[in-house]
Amino acid sequence: MPDQSAPRPISALSADELAAEHERLRAAYADLQARGLKLDLTRGKPAPEQLDLANALLSLPGGDDVRDASGTDTRNYGGTQGLPEIRAIFSELLSIPAENLIAGNNASLEIMHDLIVFALLHGTPDSARPWVREETIKFLAPVPGYDRHFAITESYGIEMIPVPLHDDGPDMDVVRELVAADPTIKGIWTVPTYANPTGAVYSEEVTRALVSMPTAAPDFRIIWDNAYAVHTLVEECAPALDVLGMAAEAGNPNRVLTVASTSKITFAGAGVSFFGASAENLAWYSKHYAKKSIGPDKVNQLRHVRFFGDADGVRAHMAQHREILAPKFARVLEILESRLGGRDVATWTRPEGGYFVSLDVVPGTARRVVELAKDAGIALTGAGSAFPYGKDPQDTNIRLAPSFPSLDDVATSMDGVATCVLLAAVEARLG
Amino acid sequence: MPDQSAPRPISALSADELAAEHERLRAAYADLQARGLKLDLTRGKPAPEQLDLANALLSLPGGDDVRDASGTDTRNYGGTQGLPEIRAIFSELLSIPAENLIAGNNASLEIMHDLIVFALLHGTPDSARPWVREETIKFLAPVPGYDRHFAITESYGIEMIPVPLHDDGPDMDVVRELVAADPTIKGIWTVPTYANPTGAVYSEEVTRALVSMPTAAPDFRIIWDNAYAVHTLVEECAPALDVLGMAAEAGNPNRVLTVASTSKITFAGAGVSFFGASAENLAWYSKHYAKKSIGPDKVNQLRHVRFFGDADGVRAHMAQHREILAPKFARVLEILESRLGGRDVATWTRPEGGYFVSLDVVPGTARRVVELAKDAGIALTGAGSAFPYGKDPQDTNIRLAPSFPSLDDVATSMDGVATCVLLAAVEARLG
Repeated sequence: MPDQSAPRPISALSADELAAEHERLRAAYADLQARGLKLDLTRGKPAPEQLDLANALLSLPGGDDVRDASGTDTRNYGGTQGLPEIRAIFSELLSIPAENLIAGNNASLEIMHDLIVFALLHGTPDSARPWVREETIKFLAPVPGYDRHFAITESYGIEMIPVPLHDDGPDMDVVRELVAADPTIKGIWTVPTYANPTGAVYSEEVTRALVSMPTAAPDFRIIWDNAYAVHTLVEECAPALDVLGMAAEAGNPNRVLTVASTSKITFAGAGVSFFGASAENLAWYSKHYAKKSIGPDKVNQLRHVRFFGDADGVRAHMAQHREILAPKFARVLEILESRLGGRDVATWTRPEGGYFVSLDVVPGTARRVVELAKDAGIALTGAGSAFPYGKDPQDTNIRLAPSFPSLDDVATSMDGVATCVLLAAVEARLG
Repeated sequence: MPDQSAPRPISALSADELAAEHERLRAAYADLQARGLKLDLTRGKPAPEQLDLANALLSLPGGDDVRDASGTDTRNYGGTQGLPEIRAIFSELLSIPAENLIAGNNASLEIMHDLIVFALLHGTPDSARPWVREETIKFLAPVPGYDRHFAITESYGIEMIPVPLHDDGPDMDVVRELVAADPTIKGIWTVPTYANPTGAVYSEEVTRALVSMPTAAPDFRIIWDNAYAVHTLVEECAPALDVLGMAAEAGNPNRVLTVASTSKITFAGAGVSFFGASAENLAWYSKHYAKKSIGPDKVNQLRHVRFFGDADGVRAHMAQHREILAPKFARVLEILESRLGGRDVATWTRPEGGYFVSLDVVPGTARRVVELAKDAGIALTGAGSAFPYGKDPQDTNIRLAPSFPSLDDVATSMDGVATCVLLAAVEARLG
């Protein structure tokens, strides 16, 4: 005789049991709606307490502290590479030689956008012609992935081909076959560390495979968006791989274009971004960048130098973030386990870093779950948003972003989401 | 009998007199070289004392002052339009309704670059197709003009057609005829107030003509770069014209794309930029901008709000700049007058604002003057730099930028430049 207290898979319920479960869940959902919640799990935004950790920046560099170690007046024009000191700090953290690393304004998204624009209008150093002169251009999109990546390529008419993302990176069998055969595939989007949204960490093996695989396109590019390089939720942070060195070793020095930023280290809207690449790629980027700017905000870079001091300063700062974030992620996982464990209605990731939990619900119900949650005052990222063109072929994936709400709100939201997941699963089974 | 003490035109000298003058100038030039100068009049950079005027920014917003008047946490993501308060301040100064004005990062150059990129890759709201799909695209370039404008269009293969710039704006007879006949002419670069480099101020008449003239291209655009809108060197600043209102009145609301910045108000590398346009243009820009950024640096905008307080705060601040800059410009004009007046070797502008004096030397000698100056340790902007493709057809124009050096260095530089102008003129006459 089955243990009555153990959770039972929805799929194992008899017709009567299913009807009863439906009633019970409808009542629970009605209660949820009656609470008049207004909660938001949509975006990977730092919480105010996280931003408070960097409030010293608001008074820095302070006084008349305007010159960096090399004597540059940070207030004036110039210095398209950014300040040497901030580049040195992140060189260590990102495993990118300082001479291959440029510091920019507040958005690495902007750098990625410009990389695509420059390739479209000028071609890369390895392109036969500007990409706009090609009939078709395609990019690989590991899924689930980052919607803002996909939005850039979509907006410029670059076709995206989804490839499965595993815990250690994209499915390399699929990737290898595609890029070897099709010269119109010009690149791949990646988030190599604590990927958005699954938390995947690209292994050294996958990384070496990516930088060394034969590609039909001579100007194939890996956008290596290391947005969460130091954003660990556990004691030991995943190491930043020397991806530029690996690419050079493999004979493809220009293949990798890396970016990172302090958006989720200091202030999300007022941080410093970084671009790391081969000397040839940097010269190419800098030449075109020089047409659009006389230099990045160096005062803000100096502000960050004064705030961090050195790479250990960044690491210590990230430990404080972890103290705020780790309990929120733990709560998400606890509630998913206690409410959905053993019910055969969902699987989810257990990230060791980054900003997201990726939740897969019963295929065909993700949109319904998001709709139910919305009608109960819980905003979730749109279903399908982690897929190119917003199209999740299975309608199964939901990205959870627990960083911004308070711990209590995270718990309330997740309990509500669990109810919605169960209700949608039962509805689907009832047909 | 001529007054021996009065300056005599080089053109009036006899052969013997010319030879003697040549000897005298060669000796003066040798003395100049012997001084081992290292002076720089190349770029319109604010002097350190000007930057010092805004040093309070280095400690702002300070404490835990992170929210604007609307309650927005400036540290976090979002707010692609920029803070309402900074937009309100510059709305008043630029005569652009706040709802038509967006505040951005540190470079209006970047906004102009992006406007061209978006037009190339997407087309404007009034374009039949993206500009890259057209066989040929042309822009009008009032000359002399701003080299960084011309560099953007040149880099993207947009042909430039020079048109003469008068004291009140471009020669409208030329402009009208060109744009009425040629649908490939898609725009014009302008610096309407205290233009770079002549100091020209576009009159209301010219402005109305520009916004109302018939154009063969339905998507013709005026890039209205009001970089020096409040940068007066005299008591009364030239008024900022309501150019968007005039364009709407003329039935061409989308024709004008305005930009400005605080680069030469606060910090050249760490200011706030602005973009003003019709609602339709703003929606178009914002849609594409949203692909490259989650928002501008709002903390820096808040910093500027706290620093300025209101539009009068900006005006009072500019009066302090004027106290530093006006004597430098006065010294340039004094030396040009005393050394070159009556010699028939040069004409120059007497700007009432902005950052430059435009000097026209004997045709065919500008390059030689810059070379002579360089060899005497005085760096001038490259001859021809104020013309598309760096080609001054008369080889006559030199841009002088007296803002950065000290008053003494300005005097030393200009005295040296005068010697070079005279020497090159005599050389040219000797053949």
